[in-house]
Amino acid sequence: MDTMKSIVMKGGQLRLQDAPMPVPGPGQVLVKSLACGICGSDLHLTRHTQEVFDLYEKLGMVSAEAAAEPQILLGHEFCAEVVGYGPDSQGALPPGTRVTSVPFLMTEAGQLAVGVTPGTHGAYSEYFLLQEALLLPVPDNVPDAAAAMVEPLAVGLHSVNRSKITATEVALVAGCGPIGLACIIALRLRGVRTIIASDPQARKRDMARQCGASHTVNPSEDDEMQLCAELARQGRAVIFECVGLPKLVPDFLQRAPEKSCLVFTGIHTADITVNLAYATVKELDLQFSYYYQPDEFASALQSLADGEVDWRALCTARVGIDGVPQAFAELMQPNDHIKVIIEPWRTGALDASWNR
Amino acid sequence: MDTMKSIVMKGGQLRLQDAPMPVPGPGQVLVKSLACGICGSDLHLTRHTQEVFDLYEKLGMVSAEAAAEPQILLGHEFCAEVVGYGPDSQGALPPGTRVTSVPFLMTEAGQLAVGVTPGTHGAYSEYFLLQEALLLPVPDNVPDAAAAMVEPLAVGLHSVNRSKITATEVALVAGCGPIGLACIIALRLRGVRTIIASDPQARKRDMARQCGASHTVNPSEDDEMQLCAELARQGRAVIFECVGLPKLVPDFLQRAPEKSCLVFTGIHTADITVNLAYATVKELDLQFSYYYQPDEFASALQSLADGEVDWRALCTARVGIDGVPQAFAELMQPNDHIKVIIEPWRTGALDASWNR
Repeated sequence: MDTMKSIVMKGGQLRLQDAPMPVPGPGQVLVKSLACGICGSDLHLTRHTQEVFDLYEKLGMVSAEAAAEPQILLGHEFCAEVVGYGPDSQGALPPGTRVTSVPFLMTEAGQLAVGVTPGTHGAYSEYFLLQEALLLPVPDNVPDAAAAMVEPLAVGLHSVNRSKITATEVALVAGCGPIGLACIIALRLRGVRTIIASDPQARKRDMARQCGASHTVNPSEDDEMQLCAELARQGRAVIFECVGLPKLVPDFLQRAPEKSCLVFTGIHTADITVNLAYATVKELDLQFSYYYQPDEFASALQSLADGEVDWRALCTARVGIDGVPQAFAELMQPNDHIKVIIEPWRTGALDASWNR
Repeated sequence: MDTMKSIVMKGGQLRLQDAPMPVPGPGQVLVKSLACGICGSDLHLTRHTQEVFDLYEKLGMVSAEAAAEPQILLGHEFCAEVVGYGPDSQGALPPGTRVTSVPFLMTEAGQLAVGVTPGTHGAYSEYFLLQEALLLPVPDNVPDAAAAMVEPLAVGLHSVNRSKITATEVALVAGCGPIGLACIIALRLRGVRTIIASDPQARKRDMARQCGASHTVNPSEDDEMQLCAELARQGRAVIFECVGLPKLVPDFLQRAPEKSCLVFTGIHTADITVNLAYATVKELDLQFSYYYQPDEFASALQSLADGEVDWRALCTARVGIDGVPQAFAELMQPNDHIKVIIEPWRTGALDASWNR
């Protein structure tokens, strides 16, 4: 077995291609991808590849060479199975063990982000590499798709932890996609009693209630910021921006309640025009949240193992490896999917009846 | 005595005019202005009157009528002397008592900001009104000019308090005008050991050291953010933006160290273009600071009374009421003044040899 199937993204197009099997280096492990979530950032990267990589280049995260027409091997939310180890490994988890991991590889060139670094396979490929030292075994009672949810759950948990919100403060989660729902779950687990969820789609508002929201608002009809201000009264409101649309930033600065804290989970790679005087006269705090700490990742997995998260409500469709390009085309249009799980080990079109 | 002298600002021009003596309403007190600082926001308001008032209108702080060609009576950093009380007053502080106050009047129309509200005299006038309930008597050992420094000192103290900086975290104060120096003083009084002050002007850097900075940087020659990152190592750096130039916002977002906190004391009323992805990948916190709490104002006065603040270093020039238009013209050009104190009870040109 020298080749495998892999989804390759270039210039906004996804293609199913054959690729050589990856070979694990020192301390690395070859894994088989069992389940991989399609992340909003995967869609963003596909839509705006050059914008994102131009920024990565400015930030010194990639070379000018790598930033030019990058060819990306996606997939950073996964459950995988140990296949074999590279040199200098402990091999503590036998082949066949189901694992997940923070999506990073430690190389001589520094830390590489799995699922976004050109030339490094992610979990949209049949096989890929992980760092042995970062592996977390997946408990038997956590199915593959549930384990693939650990990563987005950790993103939500990190945002909520960063805000240091207390049980009696008011949370507003704007946007009830996977990250918004992950925030709601983390807020509920933290004991926050007032959780307002805002989304124009009825299905997502239902899902938000199911995840633990105490109030839901359709922002096309009602003013979610006003409700937030009313419920917070003199206390602090914490607003989680989980939509990721650039136009919402100036809008939120204008409409956020006084003394509130805005936590941005969306990654706004485009330049935007804002007036910061709104932030000044209301004394807003703006926090920017990115990834998570390893202990938050482990804690998200533990929540799933403890049955505290209704992952079936979140995983609304699955697709085989050959169905991924068509699934992306659907997800680029308005839709009511929450999390679509890729099963790269099989073929098959998008199946949206799963878990409903 | 029916009339008084007053500085009136309209359309970017300051004029010395006669005005009717203000009459104190219920709970109000008529005071004589003894000393009043020229604030950077007074200059900003004079340069960008319509921009600021258009924003105030959008924020619902003034009516469209008031925002059209506003005529402003400046002066919100003051020491004054009690002259007489309006009806329904306690009159606890006898006429002649020197006082200062947070610059607000409580009226039936709501809270009015003294020194910025069209139609309400500030301390650039010979006489103006204050709220009796907000008066703080000025201790005998605090001279008039020192008491006029309470307001900017409170602005700095509030910014520092808002940041919750600890003694072992690293502070960078960018811009060593009166607010930057007030931040440095507040940081020193809070026990912060590493205080980097950054300013292109040698005189302001000297002043920063005098106020308590442990390091100074000329940002035209050296990288203040790099020094900040080096000194902070794994700890948090807190960066106080006390320059107020819009172009610094995107620049600071790009250059701030990872995980740092940026506190904006400048009021950026113009639209600016930023890329928030810099804030995301570095997980920055942005805090916006505006005014102060009454206890912070009182605490700034107490610091002066306790001899903890070298106010003479900060008050670098004084001017009589007729010299104010010319003083503004000088302050609008590059200069090395720190705080210019108006003494509205006398005439006289700008005297920059004072306290040197």
